[in-house]
Order: sequence, then structure tokens, then C-alpha cells
Amino acid sequence: MDFVNKKLVTIVAESALEKRLVTSLHDSGIKGYTVSTVHGAGTRNQRVGDLQGGNVKIECVVGEDHVDAIFTMLSTHFFPHYACVAWVSEVGVFRDERF
Amino acid sequence: MDFVNKKLVTIVAESALEKRLVTSLHDSGIKGYTVSTVHGAGTRNQRVGDLQGGNVKIECVVGEDHVDAIFTMLSTHFFPHYACVAWVSEVGVFRDERF
Amino acid sequence: MDFVNKKLVTIVAESALEKRLVTSLHDSGIKGYTVSTVHGAGTRNQRVGDLQGGNVKIECVVGEDHVDAIFTMLSTHFFPHYACVAWVSEVGVFRDERF
Repeated sequence: MDFVNKKLVTIVAESALEKRLVTSLHDSGIKGYTVSTVHGAGTRNQRVGDLQGGNVKIECVVGEDHVDAIFTMLSTHFFPHYACVAWVSEVGVFRDERF
Repeated sequence: MDFVNKKLVTIVAESALEKRLVTSLHDSGIKGYTVSTVHGAGTRNQRVGDLQGGNVKIECVVGEDHVDAIFTMLSTHFFPHYACVAWVSEVGVFRDERF
Repeated sequence: MDFVNKKLVTIVAESALEKRLVTSLHDSGIKGYTVSTVHGAGTRNQRVGDLQGGNVKIECVVGEDHVDAIFTMLSTHFFPHYACVAWVSEVGVFRDERF
């Protein structure tokens, strides 16, 4: 079975940022995304209060060429200002037309 | 520490499909699964309404030999008919008897 | 764009274990974690009742050197006693100071 290599980008941030993040992701060229409501704590202890108010985890499967655009966007507009973390991993998709 | 290589299959689909997907996954030989309630949007814009009604993300850790069965099942019964996406990635498990 | 290699550890267990798991993860040296409320079923069929009562999925991005400590902790205090599964995968982070 043939799989196409893609990247899964996962972003965790305060729920209040969901709409802005989704808009920014669309501007970065993504075609779809999945949002989960999560909670947790990170290393910015002063932000734990916000985080307990609810976080979102946004996942999107993208082509390799979108990863730089997304992380440039995150490091410009989100990482310096908010409790926001992100990571990227390798995934395979069966049909690549949807991603 | 010894880890055993497995595959993590992630499926995102309309919530209404959860029971059918889980039944089909069991028929494909999986032993366990995890379901998260999520929301989001994909490339089938006409399906955004359904998706906003709620999606599920189903994850299962399986042996390499189950991946083909799962994706054959998905591409036969789900991908052509529904807003359903899936991807696969490499994971390691400590104890392989549960997967 | 430079990414730093990290490990994503994912743990799925009964919701009742969340506080103990998070405390144990902190004792293992993790700096942050994300919790999702999930449901599902595993191979310990006698535990399906508990699982339907609600599970949690705990994710944390850690350095390679924390993976052994976490899985030693899990295999000592959780795997033998509870419906608890875990897996590890490779991820890349843009800024490693938060993990």
C-alpha cells in the first residue's frame, strides 16, 4: 500500500487563541485542521491560570513545504507572546489530495 | 530500554461514524482504540456543517501487518463516501502484548 | 528551519489516575504536559467498564534522556496494576527551551 509522506504539526495554546491560530494557519496554506479541547501545564508557570481555563490542541497534516511557513508564523506572532508550544512529526497518508 | 516498533493509525471523521468505524477496526483485527471528540474543517467544504456538528478522532496502535487491512477498509467503505481522513506514524511501545 | 529532536510520550489511562500520573511525570523531570479526555476500549476486557467511565490521554514532549525514567515509572507503578498503555514517537520542536 502506498503512503505519501506528510508532516503532522501539533500546536497547543490557550483556547482564546483558537480563532487567530486557525486564521493564521489558513493564511499559511493549510487545507484542514482538527481541534481538541485539552488542559495541562507548561513551563510558563505564570500562565498556568490561563491554561487551566482551557487549552486547545490544533493538529494539521501538511506538506513539507508548509512547515516553514507555519513555524515562521508561530515564532513571529505566537511563541513570544503567549503560552504556545508546537511540534512536528512524520506521518504517512494514503490519499494525498485532501491534505 | 527496549521498545517494539508499532504503527499509530489516526482517523478523523464525523461523530456519526464512530460506531461503524470502531466495528470495522475490530473486524480489521485491532485490539484497542482511543476516541477523542474534536472539531475542525477539511477540504470538503460542503461537509463543514457536518464537521462542526462534531468529529471524532480515533487512534489505534497496531502491528505493521494491520495497517494495510485498516487502510483497505477505509478506502473501500469510508474515504469515498464521507468526510474522513487518516494518517499513520511510527511509534514505539514498551510492552507489545497489549497492542 | 532548525528543529530539535525530542520524544513525544503518550499515555492513556483511566481518568482516576490523572493526578497520580501527572505527579509521577513531574517526578520524572517533565516540564509540561497536555491532557485530553478520551474514551475507548483496550485488551483488558474486564476494565472496559472503567474505561467507559472516561479515560485520559496525557502527552508530553521530552528529551531522549527522560524516556527511560518515564517508562520505568510506568512499568513499575502503573502497567501491572491498571488499564494503562503508552507509546513514544519522534517529534521536532522549533524552540527547545520550553520542553
